[in-house]
Amino acid sequence: MTDSFTLATGEASWDDLKWDGRGLIPTVVQDADTGMVLMVAWMSRESLRLTLETGETHFWSRSRKELWHKGGTSGNIQKVTGLWVDCDGDTLLVQVHPAGPACHTGAISCFFRKFAEHA
Amino acid sequence: MTDSFTLATGEASWDDLKWDGRGLIPTVVQDADTGMVLMVAWMSRESLRLTLETGETHFWSRSRKELWHKGGTSGNIQKVTGLWVDCDGDTLLVQVHPAGPACHTGAISCFFRKFAEHA
Repeated sequence: MTDSFTLATGEASWDDLKWDGRGLIPTVVQDADTGMVLMVAWMSRESLRLTLETGETHFWSRSRKELWHKGGTSGNIQKVTGLWVDCDGDTLLVQVHPAGPACHTGAISCFFRKFAEHA
Repeated sequence: MTDSFTLATGEASWDDLKWDGRGLIPTVVQDADTGMVLMVAWMSRESLRLTLETGETHFWSRSRKELWHKGGTSGNIQKVTGLWVDCDGDTLLVQVHPAGPACHTGAISCFFRKFAEHA
């Protein structure tokens, strides 16, 4: 894991996390090697616990209303190399080594569309 | 702006954006040069409009319930170099040249705390 994408000056733990009204926390997933932002998804307490336990990202699917092991079906799992908490404790950043594309469209990153105001 | 942190294969516009029940959309802010994820904040339609119009990030402060020109007080503005929409249209990624630290604590990035399960 490269350290150029983060600078650790502190630690945070479960008690520092602020879950929203649904018990979720938005989580940015970043490629630990390239720095590319791959996706944003939501973690529940259970998905964070599973992520820590397995070393692979787990999320809560708001549309399917179920736990979701990223890559569990596609094989495109994400091996966690680092987990970070923001100053407010209401957002996570997880750095990963992805086994394949993050996006269900097959794109490496879900952020493959440039915003064009007058498109 | 380096392209190593994004790969454009499409475009999205206002019609593709999905605002949540509060009319907000979570926005990842990334340093365009270093790739560091600086912060996550929320944009309203008005803050996105102002961001596009001025070329500097604007957000909606959920705690203060007001528009917020990032750096308007501190001077640590963020010049926008690219704006990206995810596959679902419900998250934005904005790449910036920051004039100073992103975090109100003075840290370069808000993600300066490593998550330690047993801290």
